[in-house]
Amino acid sequence: MSSEAPLYETLALQLQRRIQAGALLAGARVPSVRSMSQQAGVSIGTVVQAYQQLEAQGVIESRPQSGYYVRATRLPGIAPPRKGAPPRPRSLSRSMLDQVLAVYARDDLVPLHSATPDPGLLPTSRISSVARDLLRRIPDKVNAYAHPPGLLALRQQVAQRLGLAGVEVEPDDVVITAGAMEAITLSLQVLTRPGDAVLVERPTYYGLMQAIEARGLKVVEIANCCDDGPDIELALKALETQPIRAAVLIPSFSNPSGATMPDDARRILVQACARRGVPIIEDDVYGELGFDGRRPVPMKAYEGHAGGVILCGSVSKIMAPGLRIGWAVSARWREELIRAKSFTSCSTPTLSQHVVAEMYAGTNIDRHLRRLRASLAANVGRFHAQIASDWPAGTRVSRPRGGVVLWVQLPPGQDAHVLFERALEHGIGIIPGTLFAASGAYRDCVRLSCAGEWTPRIQTALQRLGQLARE
Amino acid sequence: MSSEAPLYETLALQLQRRIQAGALLAGARVPSVRSMSQQAGVSIGTVVQAYQQLEAQGVIESRPQSGYYVRATRLPGIAPPRKGAPPRPRSLSRSMLDQVLAVYARDDLVPLHSATPDPGLLPTSRISSVARDLLRRIPDKVNAYAHPPGLLALRQQVAQRLGLAGVEVEPDDVVITAGAMEAITLSLQVLTRPGDAVLVERPTYYGLMQAIEARGLKVVEIANCCDDGPDIELALKALETQPIRAAVLIPSFSNPSGATMPDDARRILVQACARRGVPIIEDDVYGELGFDGRRPVPMKAYEGHAGGVILCGSVSKIMAPGLRIGWAVSARWREELIRAKSFTSCSTPTLSQHVVAEMYAGTNIDRHLRRLRASLAANVGRFHAQIASDWPAGTRVSRPRGGVVLWVQLPPGQDAHVLFERALEHGIGIIPGTLFAASGAYRDCVRLSCAGEWTPRIQTALQRLGQLARE
Repeated sequence: MSSEAPLYETLALQLQRRIQAGALLAGARVPSVRSMSQQAGVSIGTVVQAYQQLEAQGVIESRPQSGYYVRATRLPGIAPPRKGAPPRPRSLSRSMLDQVLAVYARDDLVPLHSATPDPGLLPTSRISSVARDLLRRIPDKVNAYAHPPGLLALRQQVAQRLGLAGVEVEPDDVVITAGAMEAITLSLQVLTRPGDAVLVERPTYYGLMQAIEARGLKVVEIANCCDDGPDIELALKALETQPIRAAVLIPSFSNPSGATMPDDARRILVQACARRGVPIIEDDVYGELGFDGRRPVPMKAYEGHAGGVILCGSVSKIMAPGLRIGWAVSARWREELIRAKSFTSCSTPTLSQHVVAEMYAGTNIDRHLRRLRASLAANVGRFHAQIASDWPAGTRVSRPRGGVVLWVQLPPGQDAHVLFERALEHGIGIIPGTLFAASGAYRDCVRLSCAGEWTPRIQTALQRLGQLARE
Repeated sequence: MSSEAPLYETLALQLQRRIQAGALLAGARVPSVRSMSQQAGVSIGTVVQAYQQLEAQGVIESRPQSGYYVRATRLPGIAPPRKGAPPRPRSLSRSMLDQVLAVYARDDLVPLHSATPDPGLLPTSRISSVARDLLRRIPDKVNAYAHPPGLLALRQQVAQRLGLAGVEVEPDDVVITAGAMEAITLSLQVLTRPGDAVLVERPTYYGLMQAIEARGLKVVEIANCCDDGPDIELALKALETQPIRAAVLIPSFSNPSGATMPDDARRILVQACARRGVPIIEDDVYGELGFDGRRPVPMKAYEGHAGGVILCGSVSKIMAPGLRIGWAVSARWREELIRAKSFTSCSTPTLSQHVVAEMYAGTNIDRHLRRLRASLAANVGRFHAQIASDWPAGTRVSRPRGGVVLWVQLPPGQDAHVLFERALEHGIGIIPGTLFAASGAYRDCVRLSCAGEWTPRIQTALQRLGQLARE
């Protein structure tokens, strides 16, 4: 099996990126099929396929006798944060949390709340057949404990995969966990004591905020510079002036902002943290989901010999969340992580460990990832188009280059809590922005997941949300 | 399928209990086949089968022309603790821990360290076929998240099973976790703050001690009265005089002591804790493993309307540890437990939840449990016999009425750390006693697991251990 994407998909993605970057504005005419064919050095047929895909995704539209045009889907990006006083440690608020957890427990909602790809976008049937085969071949093994650090065959695959991303690690540096969330929880347990302050970006994943609160920690929030992740200048200042014990960052296709830290920023921040003796917990759970197929180099690649970064990843966004397989990777804190894992959930599901090892070793995962990325990129395009056409003027939307979520800022005066409740009345799940920061910020924001398969049901839900937001 | 044990097994167990209780001393003649047949109202053939089983287990021996005799296997029980000063909060020691964790990660040892039944004693092939069927029928479902509190069908089965044990709970009171260890960790997180003191029995499961330490808690240890669990008088005094925030107890077939709290003691302690507002975390993981088939009534049955007990259980000791399925049961702390679970490991493996629900609903679990209990009871008899014949005089051994472990006290002057290290050199895993208490107690004790299938390899390992202990 070739590991190359079809040419037309590559072309479609290139064009979509140019549109998203603003190089082709809404209403602009897309180069003709013939001129694009010459420009890109591909066949007419390839260009036609690419344009048809983009049309199906709502990114461009054909006008009879005239050609293709960029649809009026360009929305303003998220407003940059106002510069203000330097950040100070804060405790977290719990408002809305239980309501949102109740949303996750329901299966009757249009799942714009759930940041996990649909089973239809994941290699579900392959996983099932691999699992059935293992259950037939080695039933004793897959039902017994697989004690920490976990199955060697899986740790080897994780190390190899990280090697491809530019991170040199040994299988022995890998501790298998029940998803990335447990990896982060264990890392916090190993690196912090209750009362400590940890540095996070703002907005950041609410699960992270809750894990931080459960540990009795405070947060120092560094506002994101829109699509580039946390403001490095502010982060460096906070490291100098605040008693920070650890940093927890999502540098690649962050949840919820979609932001991705540039390579330089990663290096600078890793080095600054190392100088201050501040370990970094790197949530890398979306790293494989860059729409252009480029895997960002994890921050861990910059840690040097001292080893100040624990990289936390999982297969929940790329294979199956129900497997509960993730990892915490660190030579330096390996023993502590094993001990912490042993005395929280003892060990990670054994069958799942074998399944994931086998999926990496015996399946063309890259081909699957290419398809998944293309689907997610297409969804982002469709969400942009739908929001542009149906939501109130003044709505702003993030422009992620990967991942599974959109961060939407409602026009001034709108209340995301109200939208959340009204959406629920209409059978639609979304996450209000206030969960993603301490102390009530982002009352005007919501997170939408683009991880579902695009269906009329989702399209209608987006239209309905726009209508509710306009009311 | 009948849910009754074969008559000869019941008879064998009755006789074994009489021997263990001291009603028939070592060397005593067992009633003749004919008189036992009349006494018990069963056929001659049934008695012969029962005696043959007990002979195979090393409990009795036949002497030509004379009949059956109780083998010289009665060992002295564990010495009662000396009464001393009332207990005070202590911090925990970590010595030996990493060495023991390394033992768990090895699969080349005779596993006298591992308190989990062999796959051969568990319904492994049935589990595998149930799992394969689910993977074929509902691959989408079993690969997706099953968010807390977890699969309703499983929670219904857990509630029903607890109902049979005398605990009235609703499916909604059940939160599914990654094994009982995670249930306990989450309960500690919900009920305590770092720096608090919790009451535990001594000795108690070292995993519990580590979870307590990881949370930054202190312990107040109540010494066990040999086979009856913690000294109730001391426990009541501690509740009065110490600032205790919660109690963590293993009332049924405790690990490592094998002790089982009498019903009265359970009721008294639950009521005393309720009066003081001290919640109890009840580790019920061995509850189904009583050798006489009697399921002890969990402490939770005595909690009344106030609901002061979180019951923590799992299928790790009765179905398969690799599934990672357990539960924390409490109407009162349900919401807090769901929140804690959501932000540590997010959710519990989905396939595993379906498998266990199906195993309870569609399999004769009681028949399996009867066989498992009989195997474990037989193993305890064999271990007793082997230790009596091969270990140094003065060795004392616990007399558990259920569960999977023996607690062995070496003769005065012996060092269990030395035995642990020498055993490792000979490829045998055991757990030194010091892990089961704060501050270095039990330097003369080891825990042995009886959960393996009885094989010449295990027999030889027990002989070798005796030899090492004599050296």
